[in-house]
Amino acid sequence: MRISALSATTGVPIPTIKYYLREGLLPEGVRTGATQADYSDAHAQRLRVIRALVASGVSIAEVRRVLAALDTPPPTPHDLLGVAHEAVTAHVEDDGLDLTDAQALAARLGAKPGMPIEPSQLRVLARALATTADAGFEIPAPVMDAYVASARRVAEAEINGVPTDSPEAAVSYVVLGTVLPESVLLALRRIAEQVVSAERFAGRSG
Amino acid sequence: MRISALSATTGVPIPTIKYYLREGLLPEGVRTGATQADYSDAHAQRLRVIRALVASGVSIAEVRRVLAALDTPPPTPHDLLGVAHEAVTAHVEDDGLDLTDAQALAARLGAKPGMPIEPSQLRVLARALATTADAGFEIPAPVMDAYVASARRVAEAEINGVPTDSPEAAVSYVVLGTVLPESVLLALRRIAEQVVSAERFAGRSG
Repeated sequence: MRISALSATTGVPIPTIKYYLREGLLPEGVRTGATQADYSDAHAQRLRVIRALVASGVSIAEVRRVLAALDTPPPTPHDLLGVAHEAVTAHVEDDGLDLTDAQALAARLGAKPGMPIEPSQLRVLARALATTADAGFEIPAPVMDAYVASARRVAEAEINGVPTDSPEAAVSYVVLGTVLPESVLLALRRIAEQVVSAERFAGRSG
Repeated sequence: MRISALSATTGVPIPTIKYYLREGLLPEGVRTGATQADYSDAHAQRLRVIRALVASGVSIAEVRRVLAALDTPPPTPHDLLGVAHEAVTAHVEDDGLDLTDAQALAARLGAKPGMPIEPSQLRVLARALATTADAGFEIPAPVMDAYVASARRVAEAEINGVPTDSPEAAVSYVVLGTVLPESVLLALRRIAEQVVSAERFAGRSG
């Protein structure tokens, strides 16, 4: 297909496609004339992955890393997911933060020694725990139990839904499915809090 | 106690305490001299609530509203929680967003007609759903089921933990417990995704 059809198929504007071509993120099409090239469905699929990554706030440099992983697939699908997951993970410097509590929670989530858990993700958790404690708030043990059980349940459903038909589809799913539902999850929790609060307290006088 | 002791007890710097006094958020102490005043434990408790609200990103104007609710308690604890909850809710304008899906999800969380669910919170959810759809990602039905069940479970544990011994304690808990654990929850989910991904895919070749 021509670049105009590629743009129409994917919804990505032509100048943006040209930018990705210049950056080497999207392979050149097959030249069919001095100013024309032919693009395949593989181009459209790759373009959707790039758009998904960029829409999730991933930098062009990180997009390049994810695409490199797609082009030379690592030995296991887990490694491929790891690259996609890492691309959308905040990189937290090792600032000597105590990871003991974060590691204990990871173990409760099912982490075993030798499992590839990103240290950066453990630091994100350790920092979140530290911020909570610094503000003088202690998450009650039964609440933390519910957080751990819910995180595990959510992850099982999500990973169960990873499409295995193509690496591109898997990476798009992991990248988009990691980042985008976060605001959905938080909004659901807040509405649930209102519902349960109404159930528990409605009608009682203050 | 003197202002210096109040500062030491609460960890709030003296200039900040003076600012809250000038803004009328903290009641004046009992004058004991030309430049001295005596503060009570009630001042310390109020100061902790203010600090909790400010630390959660609540504006001074919203802090004033929460404190007013504390001073003239609404008829039910649920109303008090509602004020605290609303103070930490993003206020999303009614921009004609379709709330059908958000309302259906609220119903699945247990919302009944007549329950006081903030429209702003429904709009936050509707917008999150719209953003997800716009990026070309559809949350699979079994995954959404897990989100709904987890939000409900988390909210039950959280609301069950609301202290009922004092309005101040309840408001602090709701405000801090709503905002601060969000980053903990998201970090737990991402680690759980890595764990479950490792369990499912480890060892399999790509």
